[in-house]
Amino acid sequence: MSINKEEITDYFKRLQDDICGQLEEADGEGRFRQDEWERPEGGGGRTRVIEGTHLEKGGVNFSAVHGPMPERIVQALRVEAGDFYATGVSIVLHPRNPLVPIIHMNVRYFEMSGGLWWFGGGIDLTPHYVDRKEARFFHRQLRTVCERHHPDYYPVFKKWADDYFYLKHRKETRGIGGIFFDRLSDQEGFAKEQRFAFVRDVGELFCPVYLPLLEENKERPFTQTQQEWQYLRRGRYVEFNLVWDKGTKFGLDTEGRTESILMSLPPQARWKYDFHPEPDSAEAETLAWLKKGIEWER
Amino acid sequence: MSINKEEITDYFKRLQDDICGQLEEADGEGRFRQDEWERPEGGGGRTRVIEGTHLEKGGVNFSAVHGPMPERIVQALRVEAGDFYATGVSIVLHPRNPLVPIIHMNVRYFEMSGGLWWFGGGIDLTPHYVDRKEARFFHRQLRTVCERHHPDYYPVFKKWADDYFYLKHRKETRGIGGIFFDRLSDQEGFAKEQRFAFVRDVGELFCPVYLPLLEENKERPFTQTQQEWQYLRRGRYVEFNLVWDKGTKFGLDTEGRTESILMSLPPQARWKYDFHPEPDSAEAETLAWLKKGIEWER
Repeated sequence: MSINKEEITDYFKRLQDDICGQLEEADGEGRFRQDEWERPEGGGGRTRVIEGTHLEKGGVNFSAVHGPMPERIVQALRVEAGDFYATGVSIVLHPRNPLVPIIHMNVRYFEMSGGLWWFGGGIDLTPHYVDRKEARFFHRQLRTVCERHHPDYYPVFKKWADDYFYLKHRKETRGIGGIFFDRLSDQEGFAKEQRFAFVRDVGELFCPVYLPLLEENKERPFTQTQQEWQYLRRGRYVEFNLVWDKGTKFGLDTEGRTESILMSLPPQARWKYDFHPEPDSAEAETLAWLKKGIEWER
Repeated sequence: MSINKEEITDYFKRLQDDICGQLEEADGEGRFRQDEWERPEGGGGRTRVIEGTHLEKGGVNFSAVHGPMPERIVQALRVEAGDFYATGVSIVLHPRNPLVPIIHMNVRYFEMSGGLWWFGGGIDLTPHYVDRKEARFFHRQLRTVCERHHPDYYPVFKKWADDYFYLKHRKETRGIGGIFFDRLSDQEGFAKEQRFAFVRDVGELFCPVYLPLLEENKERPFTQTQQEWQYLRRGRYVEFNLVWDKGTKFGLDTEGRTESILMSLPPQARWKYDFHPEPDSAEAETLAWLKKGIEWER
Protein backbone atom coordinates (compact mmCIF):
# COMPACT_ATOMS: atom_id res chain seq x y z
CA MET A 1 0.00 0.00 0.00
CA SER A 2 1.35 3.38 -1.05
CA ILE A 3 2.42 6.12 1.33
CA ASN A 4 -0.32 8.68 1.93
CA LYS A 5 -0.38 12.42 2.45
CA GLU A 6 -0.98 12.15 6.20
CA GLU A 7 2.24 10.18 6.66
CA ILE A 8 4.17 12.68 4.56
CA THR A 9 2.69 15.58 6.49
CA ASP A 10 3.55 14.00 9.83
CA TYR A 11 7.06 13.36 8.64
CA PHE A 12 7.51 17.02 7.61
CA LYS A 13 6.30 18.15 11.03
CA ARG A 14 8.81 15.90 12.76
CA LEU A 15 11.52 17.14 10.41
CA GLN A 16 10.73 20.74 11.38
CA ASP A 17 10.88 19.79 15.08
CA ASP A 18 14.15 17.96 14.66
CA ILE A 19 15.88 20.71 12.67
CA CYS A 20 14.67 23.46 15.02
CA GLY A 21 16.01 21.51 18.00
CA GLN A 22 19.41 21.05 16.40
CA LEU A 23 19.60 24.68 15.31
CA GLU A 24 18.76 25.94 18.81
CA GLU A 25 21.50 23.77 20.20
CA ALA A 26 23.98 25.05 17.61
CA ASP A 27 23.02 28.66 18.23
CA GLY A 28 23.33 28.42 21.99
CA GLU A 29 20.93 30.99 23.39
CA GLY A 30 18.52 31.62 20.51
CA ARG A 31 15.10 30.01 20.66
CA PHE A 32 12.53 29.70 17.89
CA ARG A 33 9.28 31.53 18.33
CA GLN A 34 6.33 29.80 16.70
CA ASP A 35 3.32 31.31 14.99
CA GLU A 36 0.58 28.92 14.04
CA TRP A 37 -1.59 30.20 11.26
CA GLU A 38 -4.65 29.03 9.39
CA ARG A 39 -5.50 29.43 5.77
CA PRO A 40 -9.13 30.54 5.37
CA GLU A 41 -9.63 28.14 2.44
CA GLY A 42 -8.13 25.16 4.29
CA GLY A 43 -5.05 24.08 6.21
CA GLY A 44 -2.36 26.21 7.74
CA GLY A 45 1.15 26.11 9.10
CA ARG A 46 3.69 26.58 11.83
CA THR A 47 6.12 29.40 11.12
CA ARG A 48 9.18 29.34 13.35
CA VAL A 49 11.65 32.18 13.46
CA ILE A 50 14.87 32.52 15.44
CA GLU A 51 16.82 35.68 16.17
CA GLY A 52 19.78 34.21 17.95
CA THR A 53 23.43 34.65 18.74
CA HIS A 54 24.92 33.07 15.64
CA LEU A 55 21.76 32.77 13.57
CA GLU A 56 20.97 36.45 13.20
CA LYS A 57 17.66 35.64 11.51
CA GLY A 58 16.37 32.26 10.47
CA GLY A 59 13.05 30.74 9.57
CA VAL A 60 11.93 27.13 9.53
CA ASN A 61 8.41 26.89 8.14
CA PHE A 62 6.08 23.95 8.01
CA SER A 63 2.78 24.17 6.17
CA ALA A 64 0.02 21.88 4.95
CA VAL A 65 -2.64 23.61 2.92
CA HIS A 66 -5.55 22.30 0.88
CA GLY A 67 -8.80 23.21 -0.80
CA PRO A 68 -10.01 24.00 -4.29
CA MET A 69 -7.10 24.87 -6.54
CA PRO A 70 -7.04 28.62 -7.29
CA GLU A 71 -7.54 29.29 -10.98
CA ARG A 72 -4.19 31.12 -11.37
CA ILE A 73 -2.34 28.15 -9.93
CA VAL A 74 -4.19 25.69 -12.15
CA GLN A 75 -2.90 27.66 -15.11
CA ALA A 76 0.61 28.16 -13.75
CA LEU A 77 1.05 24.47 -12.93
CA ARG A 78 -0.76 23.31 -16.06
CA VAL A 79 -2.95 20.83 -14.18
CA GLU A 80 -6.66 20.03 -14.26
CA ALA A 81 -8.88 22.02 -11.90
CA GLY A 82 -9.82 20.24 -8.66
CA ASP A 83 -8.82 20.01 -5.02
CA PHE A 84 -5.18 20.16 -4.05
CA TYR A 85 -3.09 19.29 -1.03
CA ALA A 86 0.38 20.74 -0.51
CA THR A 87 2.75 20.28 2.41
CA GLY A 88 6.39 21.05 3.02
CA VAL A 89 9.21 22.43 5.09
CA SER A 90 11.13 25.52 4.04
CA ILE A 91 14.24 26.97 5.66
CA VAL A 92 16.39 30.05 5.19
CA LEU A 93 19.14 30.97 7.68
CA HIS A 94 21.03 34.26 7.74
CA PRO A 95 24.03 33.81 10.05
CA ARG A 96 25.53 36.78 11.86
CA ASN A 97 29.13 35.98 10.92
CA PRO A 98 29.92 36.77 7.25
CA LEU A 99 32.23 33.74 7.19
CA VAL A 100 29.23 31.46 7.68
CA PRO A 101 27.15 30.87 4.51
CA ILE A 102 23.45 31.57 4.11
CA ILE A 103 21.56 28.33 3.52
CA HIS A 104 18.20 27.45 2.05
CA MET A 105 16.42 24.11 2.07
CA ASN A 106 12.96 23.08 0.96
CA VAL A 107 11.14 19.76 0.73
CA ARG A 108 7.56 19.60 -0.45
CA TYR A 109 4.79 17.29 -1.55
CA PHE A 110 1.82 18.12 -3.74
CA GLU A 111 -1.21 16.17 -4.87
CA MET A 112 -4.42 16.77 -6.78
CA SER A 113 -7.82 15.18 -6.41
CA GLY A 114 -7.45 13.25 -9.71
CA GLY A 115 -4.52 11.22 -8.33
CA LEU A 116 -1.68 13.40 -9.62
CA TRP A 117 1.17 13.76 -7.11
CA TRP A 118 4.74 14.93 -6.97
CA PHE A 119 7.63 15.84 -4.69
CA GLY A 120 9.93 18.80 -5.03
CA GLY A 121 12.67 20.51 -3.11
CA GLY A 122 16.30 21.41 -2.92
CA ILE A 123 19.19 22.72 -0.87
CA ASP A 124 21.48 25.53 -1.92
CA LEU A 125 24.31 27.35 -0.20
CA THR A 126 25.11 31.06 -0.49
CA PRO A 127 28.50 31.80 1.06
CA HIS A 128 29.36 35.47 1.49
CA TYR A 129 32.90 34.26 0.83
CA VAL A 130 33.32 31.15 -1.29
CA ASP A 131 35.61 28.63 0.38
CA ARG A 132 36.60 26.04 -2.18
CA LYS A 133 37.00 23.27 0.43
CA GLU A 134 33.67 23.95 2.06
CA ALA A 135 32.01 24.03 -1.33
CA ARG A 136 33.49 20.63 -2.12
CA PHE A 137 32.34 19.23 1.23
CA PHE A 138 28.83 20.56 0.61
CA HIS A 139 28.47 19.23 -2.91
CA ARG A 140 30.03 15.88 -2.10
CA GLN A 141 27.48 15.28 0.58
CA LEU A 142 24.68 16.20 -1.80
CA ARG A 143 26.15 13.90 -4.42
CA THR A 144 26.45 11.03 -1.96
CA VAL A 145 22.83 11.31 -0.92
CA CYS A 146 21.67 11.63 -4.52
CA GLU A 147 23.67 8.61 -5.65
CA ARG A 148 22.01 6.49 -3.01
CA HIS A 149 18.81 6.93 -5.02
CA HIS A 150 19.71 7.30 -8.69
CA PRO A 151 22.92 7.92 -10.64
CA ASP A 152 21.29 10.77 -12.59
CA TYR A 153 19.98 12.64 -9.56
CA TYR A 154 23.11 14.59 -8.68
CA PRO A 155 24.09 15.79 -12.17
CA VAL A 156 20.53 16.60 -13.18
CA PHE A 157 19.49 18.29 -9.94
CA LYS A 158 22.81 20.12 -9.61
CA LYS A 159 22.32 21.67 -13.05
CA TRP A 160 18.71 22.46 -12.19
CA ALA A 161 19.92 24.38 -9.12
CA ASP A 162 22.48 26.29 -11.22
CA ASP A 163 19.70 27.34 -13.58
CA TYR A 164 17.13 28.09 -10.88
CA PHE A 165 19.21 30.00 -8.32
CA TYR A 166 20.40 32.46 -10.94
CA LEU A 167 20.15 36.26 -10.97
CA LYS A 168 19.68 36.83 -14.67
CA HIS A 169 19.91 40.61 -14.29
CA ARG A 170 23.31 40.27 -12.59
CA LYS A 171 24.55 37.28 -14.58
CA GLU A 172 25.44 35.76 -11.20
CA THR A 173 24.42 32.55 -9.48
CA ARG A 174 22.98 33.17 -6.01
CA GLY A 175 25.80 31.20 -4.44
CA ILE A 176 27.47 27.85 -5.07
CA GLY A 177 24.16 26.18 -5.89
CA GLY A 178 23.31 22.72 -4.66
CA ILE A 179 20.40 20.63 -5.86
CA PHE A 180 16.92 21.55 -7.02
CA PHE A 181 14.17 19.21 -8.20
CA ASP A 182 10.46 19.39 -8.91
CA ARG A 183 7.59 17.22 -10.07
CA LEU A 184 9.28 13.98 -9.05
CA SER A 185 6.46 11.51 -9.55
CA ASP A 186 6.15 8.02 -10.97
CA GLN A 187 8.18 8.75 -14.12
CA GLU A 188 10.51 5.91 -15.21
CA GLY A 189 8.83 3.46 -12.88
CA PHE A 190 9.75 5.20 -9.65
CA ALA A 191 7.52 4.20 -6.75
CA LYS A 192 6.12 6.93 -4.57
CA GLU A 193 7.94 5.43 -1.60
CA GLN A 194 11.25 5.72 -3.46
CA ARG A 195 10.70 9.40 -4.21
CA PHE A 196 9.70 10.00 -0.63
CA ALA A 197 12.79 8.18 0.63
CA PHE A 198 14.94 10.54 -1.42
CA VAL A 199 13.12 13.62 -0.13
CA ARG A 200 13.56 12.38 3.46
CA ASP A 201 17.27 11.97 2.85
CA VAL A 202 17.47 15.53 1.53
CA GLY A 203 15.63 16.84 4.57
CA GLU A 204 17.83 14.89 6.93
CA LEU A 205 20.96 16.09 5.18
CA PHE A 206 20.26 19.66 6.19
CA CYS A 207 21.80 19.54 9.65
CA PRO A 208 24.85 17.38 8.83
CA VAL A 209 25.66 19.59 5.85
CA TYR A 210 25.13 22.97 7.50
CA LEU A 211 26.01 22.61 11.17
CA PRO A 212 29.72 21.93 10.52
CA LEU A 213 29.93 25.11 8.41
CA LEU A 214 28.26 27.05 11.22
CA GLU A 215 30.40 25.46 13.94
CA GLU A 216 33.71 25.98 12.23
CA ASN A 217 33.13 29.61 11.33
CA LYS A 218 30.69 31.15 13.77
CA GLU A 219 33.34 32.39 16.22
CA ARG A 220 35.89 33.53 13.65
CA PRO A 221 36.79 37.21 13.87
CA PHE A 222 35.72 39.33 10.90
CA THR A 223 36.40 42.83 9.65
CA GLN A 224 34.16 45.78 8.86
CA THR A 225 34.88 45.18 5.18
CA GLN A 226 33.63 41.62 5.48
CA GLN A 227 30.50 42.78 7.26
CA GLU A 228 29.80 45.38 4.56
CA TRP A 229 30.23 42.74 1.90
CA GLN A 230 27.85 40.45 3.76
CA TYR A 231 25.19 43.19 3.68
CA LEU A 232 25.70 43.73 -0.05
CA ARG A 233 25.42 39.98 -0.68
CA ARG A 234 22.25 39.96 1.39
CA GLY A 235 21.00 42.64 -1.01
CA ARG A 236 21.53 40.15 -3.82
CA TYR A 237 19.65 37.53 -1.82
CA VAL A 238 16.72 39.95 -1.56
CA GLU A 239 16.88 40.56 -5.30
CA PHE A 240 16.74 36.86 -6.05
CA ASN A 241 13.89 36.15 -3.68
CA LEU A 242 11.72 39.07 -4.73
CA VAL A 243 12.45 39.13 -8.46
CA TRP A 244 13.11 35.55 -9.50
CA ASP A 245 12.06 33.04 -6.86
CA LYS A 246 8.94 31.30 -8.13
CA GLY A 247 7.84 30.17 -4.67
CA THR A 248 7.95 33.69 -3.27
CA LYS A 249 6.18 35.21 -6.27
CA PHE A 250 3.56 32.56 -6.17
CA GLY A 251 2.94 33.03 -2.48
CA LEU A 252 2.62 36.80 -2.73
CA ASP A 253 0.48 36.58 -5.85
CA THR A 254 -1.92 34.14 -4.28
CA GLU A 255 -2.25 35.90 -0.94
CA GLY A 256 -0.27 33.46 1.13
CA ARG A 257 0.80 34.53 4.64
CA THR A 258 3.21 37.35 3.81
CA GLU A 259 5.27 37.17 6.99
CA SER A 260 5.87 33.45 6.50
CA ILE A 261 6.82 33.87 2.86
CA LEU A 262 9.14 36.81 3.52
CA MET A 263 10.84 35.28 6.56
CA SER A 264 13.50 34.41 3.98
CA LEU A 265 14.57 38.07 3.75
CA PRO A 266 17.69 39.04 5.69
CA PRO A 267 17.62 41.17 8.86
CA GLN A 268 19.26 43.91 6.83
CA ALA A 269 20.75 44.47 3.40
CA ARG A 270 22.61 47.16 1.50
CA TRP A 271 22.79 48.47 -2.01
CA LYS A 272 25.68 50.51 -3.28
CA TYR A 273 25.47 51.94 -6.78
CA ASP A 274 27.73 50.13 -9.24
CA PHE A 275 29.92 48.58 -6.57
CA HIS A 276 32.94 46.60 -7.72
CA PRO A 277 35.26 44.91 -5.24
CA GLU A 278 39.00 45.61 -5.39
CA PRO A 279 40.76 43.46 -8.00
CA ASP A 280 42.28 40.31 -6.46
CA SER A 281 40.40 40.82 -3.20
CA ALA A 282 38.59 37.96 -1.48
CA GLU A 283 35.33 39.66 -2.53
CA ALA A 284 36.38 39.72 -6.19
CA GLU A 285 37.39 36.08 -5.93
CA THR A 286 33.97 35.15 -4.57
CA LEU A 287 32.24 37.02 -7.40
CA ALA A 288 34.33 35.12 -9.91
CA TRP A 289 33.00 31.85 -8.47
CA LEU A 290 29.35 32.81 -8.96
CA LYS A 291 29.01 31.01 -12.26
CA LYS A 292 26.97 28.12 -13.53
CA GLY A 293 28.51 24.77 -14.34
CA ILE A 294 31.33 24.59 -11.78
CA GLU A 295 32.05 21.03 -10.67
CA TRP A 296 32.36 21.84 -7.00
CA GLU A 297 32.64 18.26 -5.86
CA ARG A 298 35.81 17.59 -7.85
CA MET B 1 3.78 71.41 -36.84
CA SER B 2 3.74 68.85 -34.05
CA ILE B 3 6.44 68.50 -31.47
CA ASN B 4 8.96 65.79 -32.36
CA LYS B 5 10.92 63.22 -30.38
CA GLU B 6 14.18 65.18 -30.63
CA GLU B 7 12.63 68.18 -28.91
CA ILE B 8 11.15 65.98 -26.19
CA THR B 9 14.49 64.23 -25.69
CA ASP B 10 16.37 67.52 -25.44
CA TYR B 11 13.83 68.79 -22.97
CA PHE B 12 14.27 65.70 -20.76
CA LYS B 13 18.04 66.18 -20.81
CA ARG B 14 17.70 69.77 -19.70
CA LEU B 15 15.24 68.69 -17.02
CA GLN B 16 17.78 66.19 -15.68
CA ASP B 17 20.46 68.91 -15.64
CA ASP B 18 18.20 71.38 -13.91
CA ILE B 19 17.00 68.96 -11.22
CA CYS B 20 20.52 67.66 -10.52
CA GLY B 21 21.76 71.23 -10.12
CA GLN B 22 19.01 72.10 -7.65
CA LEU B 23 19.48 68.89 -5.69
CA GLU B 24 23.23 69.45 -5.35
CA GLU B 25 22.55 72.90 -4.02
CA ALA B 26 19.99 71.57 -1.54
CA ASP B 27 22.31 68.81 -0.38
CA GLY B 28 25.27 71.11 0.14
CA GLU B 29 28.35 68.95 -0.36
CA GLY B 30 27.05 66.02 -2.36
CA ARG B 31 27.76 65.90 -6.08
CA PHE B 32 26.21 63.64 -8.71
CA ARG B 33 28.50 61.21 -10.41
CA GLN B 34 27.48 60.47 -14.00
CA ASP B 35 27.73 57.22 -15.92
CA GLU B 36 26.97 57.42 -19.60
CA TRP B 37 25.91 54.10 -21.05
CA GLU B 38 24.99 52.78 -24.44
CA ARG B 39 22.40 50.22 -25.33
CA PRO B 40 23.81 47.72 -27.84
CA GLU B 41 20.58 47.76 -29.86
CA GLY B 42 20.37 51.57 -29.97
CA GLY B 43 20.47 54.61 -27.75
CA GLY B 44 21.63 54.90 -24.17
CA GLY B 45 21.47 57.11 -21.15
CA ARG B 46 23.05 59.22 -18.45
CA THR B 47 22.71 57.73 -14.98
CA ARG B 48 23.45 60.18 -12.20
CA VAL B 49 23.81 59.11 -8.60
CA ILE B 50 24.44 61.19 -5.51
CA GLU B 51 25.63 59.99 -2.11
CA GLY B 52 25.47 63.23 -0.22
CA THR B 53 24.99 64.77 3.19
CA HIS B 54 21.20 64.90 3.27
CA LEU B 55 20.49 62.78 0.23
CA GLU B 56 21.92 59.52 1.46
CA LYS B 57 21.38 57.90 -1.92
CA GLY B 58 19.62 59.35 -4.91
CA GLY B 59 19.45 58.67 -8.62
CA VAL B 60 18.36 60.92 -11.48
CA ASN B 61 18.35 58.96 -14.71
CA PHE B 62 17.92 60.14 -18.24
CA SER B 63 17.63 57.67 -21.10
CA ALA B 64 16.68 57.64 -24.75
CA VAL B 65 16.63 54.20 -26.31
CA HIS B 66 15.43 52.94 -29.66
CA GLY B 67 15.56 50.06 -32.11
CA PRO B 68 13.38 47.12 -33.07
CA MET B 69 10.78 46.47 -30.40
CA PRO B 70 11.64 43.29 -28.45
CA GLU B 71 8.98 40.63 -28.90
CA ARG B 72 8.19 40.42 -25.17
CA ILE B 73 7.52 44.13 -25.03
CA VAL B 74 5.34 44.05 -28.13
CA GLN B 75 3.16 41.54 -26.31
CA ALA B 76 3.26 43.30 -22.95
CA LEU B 77 2.30 46.67 -24.44
CA ARG B 78 -0.16 45.15 -26.91
CA VAL B 79 1.24 47.11 -29.87
CA GLU B 80 2.19 46.17 -33.44
CA ALA B 81 5.77 45.05 -34.01
CA GLY B 82 8.11 47.71 -35.39
CA ASP B 83 10.72 50.20 -34.27
CA PHE B 84 10.28 52.07 -31.02
CA TYR B 85 11.73 55.15 -29.40
CA ALA B 86 11.50 55.75 -25.64
CA THR B 87 12.92 58.57 -23.59
CA GLY B 88 12.44 59.79 -20.05
CA VAL B 89 13.73 60.99 -16.73
CA SER B 90 13.38 58.91 -13.59
CA ILE B 91 14.21 59.92 -10.03
CA VAL B 92 14.29 58.23 -6.64
CA LEU B 93 15.75 59.96 -3.58
CA HIS B 94 16.44 58.29 -0.24
CA PRO B 95 17.13 61.04 2.30
CA ARG B 96 19.30 60.39 5.35
CA ASN B 97 16.89 61.92 7.85
CA PRO B 98 13.83 59.71 8.54
CA LEU B 99 11.73 62.87 8.87
CA VAL B 100 12.31 63.64 5.19
CA PRO B 101 10.16 61.57 2.79
CA ILE B 102 11.41 59.35 0.01
CA ILE B 103 10.31 60.70 -3.37
CA HIS B 104 9.93 59.25 -6.83
CA MET B 105 9.25 61.05 -10.09
CA ASN B 106 9.14 59.83 -13.66
CA VAL B 107 8.28 61.45 -16.98
CA ARG B 108 8.52 59.52 -20.20
CA TYR B 109 7.65 59.54 -23.87
CA PHE B 110 7.21 56.56 -26.16
CA GLU B 111 6.56 56.20 -29.87
CA MET B 112 6.36 53.44 -32.46
CA SER B 113 7.25 53.49 -36.13
CA GLY B 114 3.58 53.34 -37.19
CA GLY B 115 2.84 56.76 -35.66
CA LEU B 116 1.62 55.59 -32.25
CA TRP B 117 2.87 57.78 -29.39
CA TRP B 118 2.16 58.42 -25.75
CA PHE B 119 3.41 60.11 -22.59
CA GLY B 120 3.49 58.62 -19.12
CA GLY B 121 4.80 59.47 -15.70
CA GLY B 122 4.01 60.37 -12.14
CA ILE B 123 5.21 61.63 -8.80
CA ASP B 124 4.64 59.90 -5.50
CA LEU B 125 5.80 60.58 -1.98
CA THR B 126 6.76 57.98 0.64
CA PRO B 127 7.13 59.60 4.04
CA HIS B 128 8.67 57.43 6.75
CA TYR B 129 6.34 59.41 9.02
CA VAL B 130 3.16 60.78 7.50
CA ASP B 131 2.72 64.46 8.28
CA ARG B 132 -0.82 65.49 7.47
CA LYS B 133 0.13 69.07 6.62
CA GLU B 134 2.98 68.10 4.36
CA ALA B 135 0.74 65.57 2.64
CA ARG B 136 -1.82 68.30 2.00
CA PHE B 137 0.86 70.64 0.65
CA PHE B 138 2.14 67.91 -1.66
CA HIS B 139 -1.23 66.89 -3.05
CA ARG B 140 -2.46 70.46 -3.43
CA GLN B 141 0.48 71.29 -5.61
CA LEU B 142 -0.15 68.23 -7.72
CA ARG B 143 -3.81 69.16 -7.99
CA THR B 144 -3.01 72.73 -9.01
CA VAL B 145 -0.69 71.60 -11.78
CA CYS B 146 -3.19 68.98 -12.97
CA GLU B 147 -6.08 71.46 -13.01
CA ARG B 148 -4.12 73.77 -15.24
CA HIS B 149 -4.47 71.09 -17.92
CA HIS B 150 -7.73 69.24 -17.37
CA PRO B 151 -10.30 69.04 -14.55
CA ASP B 152 -10.19 65.22 -14.64
CA TYR B 153 -6.42 64.91 -14.40
CA TYR B 154 -6.03 65.16 -10.65
CA PRO B 155 -8.85 62.82 -9.56
CA VAL B 156 -8.07 60.24 -12.25
CA PHE B 157 -4.28 60.28 -11.87
CA LYS B 158 -4.48 60.41 -8.07
CA LYS B 159 -6.58 57.24 -8.04
CA TRP B 160 -4.24 55.66 -10.58
CA ALA B 161 -1.33 56.34 -8.20
CA ASP B 162 -3.24 54.82 -5.27
CA ASP B 163 -3.79 51.67 -7.30
CA TYR B 164 -0.32 51.52 -8.79
CA PHE B 165 1.85 52.28 -5.74
CA TYR B 166 0.23 49.52 -3.73
CA LEU B 167 1.80 46.57 -1.94
CA LYS B 168 -0.92 44.00 -2.43
CA HIS B 169 0.83 41.46 -0.20
CA ARG B 170 0.89 43.99 2.67
CA LYS B 171 -2.43 45.67 1.92
CA GLU B 172 -0.50 48.94 2.24
CA THR B 173 0.04 51.83 -0.13
CA ARG B 174 3.72 52.63 -0.64
CA GLY B 175 3.25 56.07 0.88
CA ILE B 176 0.76 58.89 0.42
CA GLY B 177 0.60 58.39 -3.33
CA GLY B 178 0.56 61.28 -5.74
CA ILE B 179 -0.26 61.05 -9.42
CA PHE B 180 0.39 58.34 -12.00
CA PHE B 181 -0.55 58.37 -15.68
CA ASP B 182 0.27 56.36 -18.77
CA ARG B 183 -0.56 56.23 -22.47
CA LEU B 184 -1.59 59.87 -22.65
CA SER B 185 -1.99 60.31 -26.38
CA ASP B 186 -4.50 62.07 -28.65
CA GLN B 187 -7.58 60.65 -26.90
CA GLU B 188 -10.47 63.15 -26.54
CA GLY B 189 -8.89 65.54 -29.01
CA PHE B 190 -5.80 66.30 -26.96
CA ALA B 191 -2.97 67.68 -29.08
CA LYS B 192 0.46 66.23 -28.57
CA GLU B 193 1.73 69.65 -27.50
CA GLN B 194 -0.92 69.79 -24.77
CA ARG B 195 0.11 66.43 -23.36
CA PHE B 196 3.74 67.46 -23.51
CA ALA B 197 2.96 70.73 -21.73
CA PHE B 198 1.40 68.75 -18.89
CA VAL B 199 4.38 66.39 -18.65
CA ARG B 200 6.74 69.40 -18.57
CA ASP B 201 4.74 70.87 -15.72
CA VAL B 202 4.98 67.60 -13.81
CA GLY B 203 8.73 67.47 -14.33
CA GLU B 204 9.14 71.06 -13.25
CA LEU B 205 7.01 70.50 -10.19
CA PHE B 206 9.54 68.08 -8.78
CA CYS B 207 11.86 70.63 -7.16
CA PRO B 208 9.21 73.02 -5.83
CA VAL B 209 7.30 70.14 -4.30
CA TYR B 210 10.23 68.26 -2.78
CA LEU B 211 12.86 70.82 -1.83
CA PRO B 212 10.70 72.47 0.87
CA LEU B 213 10.12 69.05 2.49
CA LEU B 214 13.87 68.41 2.41
CA GLU B 215 14.76 71.90 3.67
CA GLU B 216 12.34 71.94 6.55
CA ASN B 217 13.24 68.54 7.89
CA LYS B 218 16.81 67.67 6.91
CA GLU B 219 18.40 69.10 10.06
CA ARG B 220 15.78 67.90 12.53
CA PRO B 221 17.13 65.63 15.24
CA PHE B 222 15.86 62.06 15.16
CA THR B 223 15.97 59.05 17.43
CA GLN B 224 17.30 55.54 17.03
CA THR B 225 13.70 54.32 16.92
CA GLN B 226 12.96 56.64 14.02
CA GLN B 227 16.05 55.45 12.18
CA GLU B 228 15.07 51.80 12.68
CA TRP B 229 11.61 52.55 11.38
CA GLN B 230 13.12 54.29 8.34
CA TYR B 231 15.10 51.14 7.55
CA LEU B 232 12.00 48.97 7.88
CA ARG B 233 10.07 51.32 5.58
CA ARG B 234 12.94 51.16 3.13
CA GLY B 235 12.43 47.39 3.23
CA ARG B 236 8.88 47.98 2.06
CA TYR B 237 10.21 50.24 -0.70
CA VAL B 238 12.43 47.39 -1.86
CA GLU B 239 9.47 45.02 -1.80
CA PHE B 240 7.40 47.35 -3.95
CA ASN B 241 10.14 47.99 -6.47
CA LEU B 242 11.22 44.37 -6.87
CA VAL B 243 7.84 42.64 -6.62
CA TRP B 244 5.28 45.05 -8.08
CA ASP B 245 6.88 47.90 -10.01
CA LYS B 246 6.25 47.27 -13.69
CA GLY B 247 9.10 49.50 -14.84
CA THR B 248 11.65 47.65 -12.73
CA LYS B 249 10.36 44.22 -13.72
CA PHE B 250 10.32 45.16 -17.34
CA GLY B 251 13.85 46.55 -17.22
CA LEU B 252 15.26 43.48 -15.50
CA ASP B 253 13.33 41.12 -17.75
CA THR B 254 14.52 42.80 -20.91
CA GLU B 255 18.15 43.12 -19.91
CA GLY B 256 18.22 46.85 -19.29
CA ARG B 257 21.21 48.33 -17.46
CA THR B 258 20.79 46.74 -14.03
CA GLU B 259 22.65 49.40 -12.04
CA SER B 260 20.52 52.16 -13.56
CA ILE B 261 17.28 50.31 -12.92
CA LEU B 262 18.21 49.40 -9.34
CA MET B 263 19.53 52.83 -8.39
CA SER B 264 16.05 53.18 -6.89
CA LEU B 265 16.93 50.75 -4.08
CA PRO B 266 17.84 52.29 -0.73
CA PRO B 267 21.37 52.33 0.67
CA GLN B 268 20.18 49.88 3.28
CA ALA B 269 16.98 48.24 4.46
CA ARG B 270 15.79 45.97 7.24
CA TRP B 271 13.31 43.22 7.71
CA LYS B 272 12.02 42.17 11.09
CA TYR B 273 9.72 39.17 11.28
CA ASP B 274 6.11 40.14 11.95
CA PHE B 275 6.95 43.59 13.27
CA HIS B 276 4.10 45.68 14.65
CA PRO B 277 4.67 49.19 15.99
CA GLU B 278 3.48 50.07 19.49
CA PRO B 279 -0.20 51.01 19.56
CA ASP B 280 -0.73 54.79 19.35
CA SER B 281 2.90 55.37 18.37
CA ALA B 282 3.85 57.69 15.51
CA GLU B 283 4.82 54.57 13.57
CA ALA B 284 1.38 53.02 14.10
CA GLU B 285 -0.23 56.26 13.05
CA THR B 286 1.78 56.31 9.82
CA LEU B 287 0.77 52.73 9.06
CA ALA B 288 -2.86 53.67 9.53
CA TRP B 289 -2.49 56.33 6.83
CA LEU B 290 -1.20 53.89 4.22
CA LYS B 291 -4.58 53.34 2.61
CA LYS B 292 -6.08 54.03 -0.77
CA GLY B 293 -8.65 56.75 -1.32
CA ILE B 294 -7.58 59.36 1.22
CA GLU B 295 -8.34 62.90 0.06
CA TRP B 296 -5.03 64.36 1.15
CA GLU B 297 -5.59 67.76 -0.40
CA ARG B 298 -8.68 68.49 1.70
